[in-house]
Amino acid sequence: MQPVRIGILGMGTVGGGTVKLLAANTAEIARRLGREVVVTAAASRNAERAERLCPPGTAVGTDVFQVAAHPEVDIVVELIGGTDVAREAVICAIENGKHVVTANKKLLAEHGNEIFALADKHNVMVMFEAAVAGGIPIIKALREGLAANQIQSVAGIINGTSNFILSEMRDHGSAFSDVLKEAQQLGYAEADPTFDIEGHDAAHKLSIMSALAFGTPIHFDACYLEGISKLESQDIRYAEELGYRIKLLGITRKTEQGIELRVHPTLIPECRLLAKVEGVMNAVLVQSNMVGETLYYGAGAGASPTASAVVADIIDIARLLNADSAHRVPPLAFRQSGETLRVLPIEEIISSYYLRVSAEDEPGVLSDIAGILAAQGVSIEALIQKGVINHQTAEIVILTHRAQEKRIQSAIAQIEALPRVAAPVTMIRMESLHG
Amino acid sequence: MQPVRIGILGMGTVGGGTVKLLAANTAEIARRLGREVVVTAAASRNAERAERLCPPGTAVGTDVFQVAAHPEVDIVVELIGGTDVAREAVICAIENGKHVVTANKKLLAEHGNEIFALADKHNVMVMFEAAVAGGIPIIKALREGLAANQIQSVAGIINGTSNFILSEMRDHGSAFSDVLKEAQQLGYAEADPTFDIEGHDAAHKLSIMSALAFGTPIHFDACYLEGISKLESQDIRYAEELGYRIKLLGITRKTEQGIELRVHPTLIPECRLLAKVEGVMNAVLVQSNMVGETLYYGAGAGASPTASAVVADIIDIARLLNADSAHRVPPLAFRQSGETLRVLPIEEIISSYYLRVSAEDEPGVLSDIAGILAAQGVSIEALIQKGVINHQTAEIVILTHRAQEKRIQSAIAQIEALPRVAAPVTMIRMESLHG
Repeated sequence: MQPVRIGILGMGTVGGGTVKLLAANTAEIARRLGREVVVTAAASRNAERAERLCPPGTAVGTDVFQVAAHPEVDIVVELIGGTDVAREAVICAIENGKHVVTANKKLLAEHGNEIFALADKHNVMVMFEAAVAGGIPIIKALREGLAANQIQSVAGIINGTSNFILSEMRDHGSAFSDVLKEAQQLGYAEADPTFDIEGHDAAHKLSIMSALAFGTPIHFDACYLEGISKLESQDIRYAEELGYRIKLLGITRKTEQGIELRVHPTLIPECRLLAKVEGVMNAVLVQSNMVGETLYYGAGAGASPTASAVVADIIDIARLLNADSAHRVPPLAFRQSGETLRVLPIEEIISSYYLRVSAEDEPGVLSDIAGILAAQGVSIEALIQKGVINHQTAEIVILTHRAQEKRIQSAIAQIEALPRVAAPVTMIRMESLHG
Repeated sequence: MQPVRIGILGMGTVGGGTVKLLAANTAEIARRLGREVVVTAAASRNAERAERLCPPGTAVGTDVFQVAAHPEVDIVVELIGGTDVAREAVICAIENGKHVVTANKKLLAEHGNEIFALADKHNVMVMFEAAVAGGIPIIKALREGLAANQIQSVAGIINGTSNFILSEMRDHGSAFSDVLKEAQQLGYAEADPTFDIEGHDAAHKLSIMSALAFGTPIHFDACYLEGISKLESQDIRYAEELGYRIKLLGITRKTEQGIELRVHPTLIPECRLLAKVEGVMNAVLVQSNMVGETLYYGAGAGASPTASAVVADIIDIARLLNADSAHRVPPLAFRQSGETLRVLPIEEIISSYYLRVSAEDEPGVLSDIAGILAAQGVSIEALIQKGVINHQTAEIVILTHRAQEKRIQSAIAQIEALPRVAAPVTMIRMESLHG
């Protein structure tokens, strides 16, 4: 058979990794696919770099639209990043009848619904395994491997930078800002780390997984977002004393009231596999009604792992070039959209909670706090009073049973209004990750 | 579109689970696939049970060949088990142009090469996600998700019964025979547990994964096999003191000399995720050249998880009914077989080793043992001398660095020949699971 012809947009880390992978694993890929995958065109701001990396004979230039519309390209691989040029280039490719592979989570989280509708209109495939959890084939699992299930929830460690920082904070008892500096020196965090540490990156990935899991459009705008920059090292320590680890989780869950869609630091029991995912690694736990829980673990970033996912998509598309849509898995897993599911505002979610209250060490404070929680219908699973800081202030750490968040928020407001409570109450959500 | 028509052979646990799953998740499956999946025929030794479980209108009987050749069946689902009738029925289905889904690891390990060749001849698909690690979509990961990689090794906890027994032995310090009885009472072990505890079941699954990973025929006959029934609780304890857990692993690795293919109890560092897979759960760790390590975890058995895998295969096939073979993923992942790879005899594998030697507690024994290992070129990573049992006998526990097994076997023979060494040397292989 004729080789499959690829056009690559953007020749940065992942673009370079993709070209190198296709060269290194040529024989294996051809043996699997029954035909070769060749890069026929590539566009990069740095045309010299592209020229150096791409095989001889590749049409290399700086104009991404030229590659997106190139007559000798079957599949356009978008590795530009961002949403401006990338969006226009993907639209251009689709309108020219090209299939698209992208690693761009931001593009899909923000414009995926538009892009998938356009792809449907033009009868082309858009695939994006690399957009979520790098080299872990989690999109394939959600779309195909678990296709016989009703998926109930997805919870993932899907930002390596944040997980590295939390692992280091715990291992060395360090403060957030010190570990962030270390992560920046190691190249695990960007000079401007906001996107990773404040949860935006995780929210992009989570929004995509939520749509795949539940058969809804992508609802990135409604995703609740809370990063790790305000986490204090004593909370990591107290959590550990109580048998928990704190991880930045993306959680999406289908409930009768709607969909939970939230990214925030989360206490999870230390016995759970997710609690043991350390450093920059990623893992996603899926709960579904037939298979129960399955977990997928691996490298969530990096040139080679991301290229592995990009090329897996290329191979999948190559098998189905020219096939009609009945042969294809729909991009968001479902052909027909389900009933309309709203995303629950954070006040309506149900979770357990870790609360830390600093209060004057006097009799009565504890009973005031317990009384406020009881009045809100929140029951206490565990309570410890921690070392008096200056013989006057005590730290009270409370783990609650499951309750609706608005009740916790009311209770916190009332606790903070107590005359003998000193500082804002620290609240971290807590998930058992069972069911 | 017309519904996809299924014929089920065998209405035991998994057959019943499959029918129940199709009923419970009808709407979700139809939304994903764009058409319905209906059971049109079923055969069971117990026709009454089949009648009760199957939807009204299903042609129910006792003759599996009738269903395998039924004109109103598109996909035959073989859930009979064993190799006699199952093999004949699958061949009958293929010869009648039916696609086949099977959960039968024994059938594929022993007759897979024949079956896949026949399927190729008749241009039908044979899929078997349920045959390995139950509901975990590991076959799909090896065939599709990791398709851009050269896979280097696969290591898995793929027998839930054995893993349950090892977890319990460790947690409670119990003897093998006591835990086996408990497992039998809980229904986690069969009345005749040989198949599970001696590693046959794991070897079936491993042989299939090895073929998928490396693009070779299935080499079940050459798989090295060692079960857990001879494991002693003190070895589990000593391993733990040294920072290791003992798991029954199936390991297959591609080396320049050939393929390692082996099932045996294995020490693994306690920090590795595989070490934390407890009870009846399964997990598979795959090392590949681009994505690095990925791990897949979930339920390896049970009616619903296995049915989840069976129905995922049905959905995959349903998308490609009537498609030509260019659209399909080959059953063993590769279209063209690779260079001929031989399976290494166990003497030629390279591993690290745990050795326990009982010897008279006299000066000189230790140096004799160390001398024997040194003469074989085996270097020692750690050595501890354990409590004297009766003031005369000491237990010496040694962890070695990596060495070829025949050198270890020579060393063991020489150590056992020492006059002051009392009993056979206990040897357990050890894997770091890195790279």
